[in-house]
Formats: sequence, C-alpha cells, structure tokens
Amino acid sequence: MRSHPPDQEHTDDNMLKVEVNLDDTPGEWLGYVMEKLFEAGANDVYYTPIYMKKNRPAVQLQLLCSQQRLEDVKHIILTETTTLGIRYYPITVFRMERRTRVVTTEYGNVTVKEGLQNDIVIKASPEYEDCKQLAETHQVPLKDVYAAVWRILK
Amino acid sequence: MRSHPPDQEHTDDNMLKVEVNLDDTPGEWLGYVMEKLFEAGANDVYYTPIYMKKNRPAVQLQLLCSQQRLEDVKHIILTETTTLGIRYYPITVFRMERRTRVVTTEYGNVTVKEGLQNDIVIKASPEYEDCKQLAETHQVPLKDVYAAVWRILK
Amino acid sequence: MRSHPPDQEHTDDNMLKVEVNLDDTPGEWLGYVMEKLFEAGANDVYYTPIYMKKNRPAVQLQLLCSQQRLEDVKHIILTETTTLGIRYYPITVFRMERRTRVVTTEYGNVTVKEGLQNDIVIKASPEYEDCKQLAETHQVPLKDVYAAVWRILK
Amino acid sequence: MRSHPPDQEHTDDNMLKVEVNLDDTPGEWLGYVMEKLFEAGANDVYYTPIYMKKNRPAVQLQLLCSQQRLEDVKHIILTETTTLGIRYYPITVFRMERRTRVVTTEYGNVTVKEGLQNDIVIKASPEYEDCKQLAETHQVPLKDVYAAVWRILK
Amino acid sequence: MRSHPPDQEHTDDNMLKVEVNLDDTPGEWLGYVMEKLFEAGANDVYYTPIYMKKNRPAVQLQLLCSQQRLEDVKHIILTETTTLGIRYYPITVFRMERRTRVVTTEYGNVTVKEGLQNDIVIKASPEYEDCKQLAETHQVPLKDVYAAVWRILK
Amino acid sequence: MRSHPPDQEHTDDNMLKVEVNLDDTPGEWLGYVMEKLFEAGANDVYYTPIYMKKNRPAVQLQLLCSQQRLEDVKHIILTETTTLGIRYYPITVFRMERRTRVVTTEYGNVTVKEGLQNDIVIKASPEYEDCKQLAETHQVPLKDVYAAVWRILK
Ligand code: NI
Ligand code: NI
Ligand code: NI
Ligand code: NI
Ligand code: NI
Ligand code: NI
Ligand code: NI
Ligand code: NI
Ligand code: NI
Ligand code: NI
Ligand code: NI
Ligand code: NI
Repeated sequence: MRSHPPDQEHTDDNMLKVEVNLDDTPGEWLGYVMEKLFEAGANDVYYTPIYMKKNRPAVQLQLLCSQQRLEDVKHIILTETTTLGIRYYPITVFRMERRTRVVTTEYGNVTVKEGLQNDIVIKASPEYEDCKQLAETHQVPLKDVYAAVWRILK
Repeated sequence: MRSHPPDQEHTDDNMLKVEVNLDDTPGEWLGYVMEKLFEAGANDVYYTPIYMKKNRPAVQLQLLCSQQRLEDVKHIILTETTTLGIRYYPITVFRMERRTRVVTTEYGNVTVKEGLQNDIVIKASPEYEDCKQLAETHQVPLKDVYAAVWRILK
Repeated sequence: MRSHPPDQEHTDDNMLKVEVNLDDTPGEWLGYVMEKLFEAGANDVYYTPIYMKKNRPAVQLQLLCSQQRLEDVKHIILTETTTLGIRYYPITVFRMERRTRVVTTEYGNVTVKEGLQNDIVIKASPEYEDCKQLAETHQVPLKDVYAAVWRILK
Repeated sequence: MRSHPPDQEHTDDNMLKVEVNLDDTPGEWLGYVMEKLFEAGANDVYYTPIYMKKNRPAVQLQLLCSQQRLEDVKHIILTETTTLGIRYYPITVFRMERRTRVVTTEYGNVTVKEGLQNDIVIKASPEYEDCKQLAETHQVPLKDVYAAVWRILK
Repeated sequence: MRSHPPDQEHTDDNMLKVEVNLDDTPGEWLGYVMEKLFEAGANDVYYTPIYMKKNRPAVQLQLLCSQQRLEDVKHIILTETTTLGIRYYPITVFRMERRTRVVTTEYGNVTVKEGLQNDIVIKASPEYEDCKQLAETHQVPLKDVYAAVWRILK
Repeated sequence: MRSHPPDQEHTDDNMLKVEVNLDDTPGEWLGYVMEKLFEAGANDVYYTPIYMKKNRPAVQLQLLCSQQRLEDVKHIILTETTTLGIRYYPITVFRMERRTRVVTTEYGNVTVKEGLQNDIVIKASPEYEDCKQLAETHQVPLKDVYAAVWRILK
C-alpha cells in the first residue's frame, strides 16, 4: 500500500475499523485514551454515545488504523480502558488527491488543504491550527480568519 | 399543591428540575443511581449524552422532583456519584386529567392509562408491564399485545 | 414586548422553554409534530436523544415560544404525542440587531442575514433556501454557492 | 441480484455501508446532502452524533447502497461535504417478503406496508405520507389516523 | 471455535455484527427487545441515537452474535420491532484471557473479573451485581463498595 | 455571594445557565469556542447533540456562569459562532464543602479533591492532570496511577 505517493488519489484496502463498548470507563480516562491512540498512529478516533443494558449510558470507541497498527492499538485499549476485548473488521478507505498550499491573508499565512478530482480543486480547508494562532495573535474571532481565507480562495 | 385530586387536570408550581454533569462516574453506577432516585420519589430521571472539556464524553443527569424531595435527591446524587455539586431551577408542570381502565384482550387484561381534555379521552396508553407479562405468558410478540389493546380502544 | 422593531437589538422577557420526554412516541410522528409546532409559532423546536428508565432510548422535545403561544403549543403536544403532561420555565432571550440584504453572485441573488453590534456587521449568513435553489438550478454543489456569497461579503 | 422479485424474501449480498466523519461541515449542508443521497439511490441515509479530537462535536454520515451506486454516492459526498475521503465495507441485507394493501378508514384510504414470514403477515405499517395527508385534510391528530388504521388491521 | 477453553485469550472469527435502524418503534418496546436479545444469546446489545429522514429522531439497534445465533436474533428483531429487514457483517472478536476470583471486603464477598496478558493481571473489575447487593444490604453508597474492593486489589 | 470562603458548603443564587442552538457552526470552531468560554470564566461549558428542522444534526452549547460574567460570555458566543441570539435563565448551584490534599503514591504525588458533608469526606477524586503526568513519566497506564491513589484513600 505504501508504494503510492500518499497524496495521490488511491484506495487503501488494508485498513481496519476497531471498536469497543465502554460502560465502566470514566469519561476522564477516555480523553486520555484518544490522545494515546492518535500517538500510536490511529487515523481517526471518535466516540459515540450508546445505551447499554441495565440503564447504562455508555460510549463506543471507534478508530481506523492499518493492519500493521492493530497490535499497538489493541495494547492501548486493553491497558488503558476497562474492556476485556476488542472487535474489528476490514474497511476500504478511499482518499482524494490532496495537496497543500499557503495563502497570505491580512492576518498572516494560512496553510490550506485542497482536495482534487481530475486535477481540479473541488474543496479547500484552512488549517485549523494556523487560523487559531492568527486569531489569538490578532485578537480577532476565529471565524474572521477563516473568512479572510475564503475570500482569497477563488 | 396536594389539595387537588392528583388525577385531575392541574398545574404543579413547586417542582424543580435538578441537573448535574458527570464525566468521571462509570456508566455502571449510573444505572444504579437512576433506580435510587426513582425510589426517592423523583418523578422522572433521565440521562443525556454530552461532551465536556478535554475530549470527555460525559453524561448529564436530569430529574424532576417536588421541592420537598430536593434534600433526598441531593443526598443520593452527592453520595452515589462523583460530583461536588448540583444545580436546579423551578419548572412548572402541567398534568392532563388522567384515569385508568382495564380492557380485556384475547391475551388477558391490560390496564390502559387515559388522558382527557374537557372530559374527552384524547389518548390512551396500554401499561407496559401488563403487556409485557401477557406477551411472556402467551409467548407472543409484545407488539401483538399492544395491537390487541389498540383494536379494542375505539 | 412587541413595541420594539423586531430587528433591533433587544431582550425578550416573556419567553418560555417548553419540554417533554417521549419514550413511546414513534419517530415518524415526531417529524410531523415538529412541523406543526413551527406552524403554531414556536421559535425553535428541537429534539435531544435521552435515556429513560427500563432501557428505553427516548427523545426530549424542547421548544421556545412566547407566553401567548403556550396554549397552542400545549394543545399540539398533548394531541399529537403520547405524553400526559408538559413542563416549562421562563427564559430570557437576547436578540442581536439584524437586517437582511441581497447579494448578487455568479449563480444569482442570495439574501444574507446580518447580525450587528454597535452598528457594525459582525456576522452574515447566506439564506439556506436561496442557496439551495441556486445550487439545484445551476447543478453545482451547495457549498459552491455559499462560497460564492462569502467571496462577496467583505 | 435484481433477478428476484424485489418484494420476495431475499438476501442482498452486494450492498455496501458507506461512512464518513464530518467535523467541519455545517449542519445546514447536512440536511441538503441527505436529500441528494436519497435521490442518488441510497437505500438509507442517517446521521449519528460523535465526538472527535480537539473537543469537536461532529457527525457521522452513514448510508447503505448497492455497489453499483457507490460511484454516485461517493461523488455527492466528495463534492457536497468537506471530507477528503470516504470509507466502506460490504454488508449483507436481509429483506422480508413485503406487500402493500390499501385499507379504508373513516378518514380515507391508507396504504399499509405488510411484512410476511412463511406467508403470514407479521407486521403492518401505515404509510406515513398517507396518514399525514388525511390528518391535515381532516384536521385531526396524526395519531388518530394511525389508530383508525390499527383498528382495521386484525 | 468452541474447542478452546472460553477463558483463554483467543480470537473468534465467526461473529457477526447485526444492525437495524428503527424510526417507528416506540422506546418502550426497545427496552423489551434488548432483554429478549440477550436471552437469545446475543453477546452485546446496544442502542445508538441516530437522525433519519423527515426529521425523525430514531435509534440504531446493534448487537454481536455468533453465526449460529443469527436465525434466533433475526426472528426476534423481525417479530418484536417494526423493521422489514436487518443487515449484518462479519466481525473479528479478540478476547483477553480472563478469570474470576472472590475478594472479601468489609461489606462481604465480591467476585472480581480479571483480564490477563502474558499471565499478568492487567485489569480487574468488581462484579456489579455483587456490589449492588452489598450496597443495598449495608445501606452504603455503591461507590463505597467498589472502593472497598479497589483497596484490596493490589 | 463572594463573601463566603469558596470551599465551604454553600449555595450560589446568582448563577445563570446560558444556551444556544447551533446548526451552521462547523465543529472545528466549537472546540475553539469552548476554550474561549472557559478562559472568560464560565464554570462549565458543554455540548449536547440535538436535531433541528430540515434534517439538520446540530449542537446545543450550554454553560454556567455568574451574572457578572454574562456580558463576556455573550460577547464570545456572538462573535465566535453563527448565532444571532442567546438565551438564559437563573439556576441555583449547590456546592459541597471541598478541600484538597496531596497523597504520595509509588509514582509520585497526586492532588486529591475531597468533598465533605458534615465534616466527613464522602468523596475523593484524584486530579486528572497530576495522574496524567505521572502516567506519562513512568510509562504506565493512567488507570494504574488512579488505582495507586485509590489504594491510599481509605
Ligand atoms: Ni494510503
Ligand atoms: Ni499577524
Ligand atoms: Ni400534582
Ligand atoms: Ni392469558
Ligand atoms: Ni422580540
Ligand atoms: Ni441562475
Ligand atoms: Ni434486493
Ligand atoms: Ni377524507
Ligand atoms: Ni470464544
Ligand atoms: Ni454484609
Ligand atoms: Ni460560590
Ligand atoms: Ni515519578
């Protein structure tokens, strides 16, 4: 899979969706686990509210990772949460061609991530961290920085 | 407030909505707390999934109770969960005129709770526990028992 | 309250938040009820997923309305859902100064709703229905129409 | 797959579940995307609230479609939302034998969708759109129209 | 699969995730269905709040079961809910080595379920039902019973 | 209100619950807004998933603040999100007597926040940030650090 340039349009076939239901892990730990899972190379980590037996509000942890990452991810889940098992299934991931460029706004430079189809830019997202930093430096609303980028993106 | 017959249409003005956010109470305990709160006379107890700081999936506990019940309810929340506080505000509760009657279906008797406006029945709900018991006794789907009641309710 | 021009900054003090928990109303009906409540003059109607006793996934209906609308709103909830009661509490609503203007994009005209503070426009939202219609007419993505408006809003 | 009469009991093996996580697409656009996806032949489209990194409340879009529809569905998601990728996996769909019939209530005709097992009707759902129209025409609660149908369904 | 001692670390490859979207099943029935599905041998049953078309708050039912249980599970879902179909996909389930032991607290005995990796206990969960019973017998908060167990688990 | 020592049991009567529904603010901005609101002195800030009209998955922002903070909080919400208004209502906040102490575990020191009733400690929560730092320094699971604290708390 890693023979393709990662920013070209391609489909990854060796990905896994991992999931686990948690009804006795405190929410405080779950914020921590998310961090650890990203550090271990999970592509995406997210929580969904669920309802389990015995009137238990609970949380489903889901993440995407390559098969190579499975052991690391499994280790973190098993050591950092209260579950006694995990489950997973293969999932196909399509990724658009993407590239980044930098635009210069009245507040400073912002990296923009672009998505392309047939070599045409069909979407462009200002990088959150850049915008956040400019908003804080210039003491303006975050959305003004985004708006400054959008005006430039034609 | 308790001078009115409880099944007549009336408005209760001494009710409170109590709420607390919980990000470090395991879900297992929350099922238990719900039970205790109903036993203490809360009229309604329910959980809402919320998102708190530091990426914590969490739960908001809410309940309705009369002002007389506040101390008992507060005691349970403070001793059975991890919170260090609770909050509450007054809420007005309108209750329809209600009465119950028993209908005889092909599976047996079911209590039906009726809601009335201007002495006219505008809604009728079969009691869940009755229907459940008949479904189990007769080994039929629960919804067949409800359907049997609905056919009778004209 | 209605002595002020509705688009000036003002605070409405006669508003109510109405809420009801629903664990035996089918979802199909809830879409319908939302429509009826908006037609009756509710300012906002929304649903929140909740968990009720006996492992019941349920829904909380909430809405904002003026005290004058309470009777109509109550009537709809009591006749169209399965609840036997509703509850409500006063809520203060602050509304920014607002005005609308029309901008001309490459796809056509779009009304923009602006919010002002101290006579300065601090936010501007393209009207969804206008953008939707242009997107459909011109067979372009909805977000391209929004982007076209954003470029004009300086 | 399309060699079977679509209303007979059968299992579809060429179906896909498609999903995408969205943390920077405004909710306004998501209502629009749902419409477009249904028009493109998705069998089911739904949203689930999720929590993503950096304290972002977000939404997971999921849908069911046949493999033949994948390209159309992918195109809509990539052009109408902010995501740079989608993911999917095969899913087996079992469909009950189904048929429709029309029942005549005191309010008018309502189509009823029936589900059968071994040629026996085990469930029957009044068509929402029919009931809605009759409720509006006759100015009665929607649930009265459903109740009228239920009384006829024996 | 059943040739392994069930408490040893192992991976089950013949498991299925079953799911169904429900927008017209009342919440009352869903609590009942959960019970029936556990009785039929589902390993896990849970609900997720979802949003379906036409502004319908709805619920996704998901469960894990072995392929041998599929027919029973399918039967319950089709007879007890309003759906006309179900869907499912294979899922791999990893289970840690587990064992139970009993610890004696100041309130009485509590079974503890332990999870092991490489013969080392890496997690230990007091059994909820034991703790609940002791809390009720001794009239102490449930969390005091858990705390009593935790102090013993070194 | 500020005449009491803040760690004694007391009830704050000048608090407000502020809320706003957001259906067109991207999730990315919402993480940012939460941060700003805490910096402005909000006591609690949280998000709840809601469903709004036109099939829009949306988010309700809620927060607690004193009346003195209202103007700052309002300013942030109005400048950083897309809403044209906010709403609020008074809420009574009861706070337990609380104190902190430091315990020395095998991994290092951890601050513990204790809640008292009638001078008796009825709950004790290890500070998350302390535990997190020790877990990272010692390369052990976060829950092992919590467990180390729990063993000491008698
Ligand atoms: Ni790749
Ligand atoms: Ni600068
Ligand atoms: Ni009363
Ligand atoms: Ni019988
Ligand atoms: Ni007004
Ligand atoms: Ni045009
Ligand atoms: Ni088919
Ligand atoms: Ni007619
Ligand atoms: Ni096994
Ligand atoms: Ni004992
Ligand atoms: Ni205070
Ligand atoms: Ni150390």
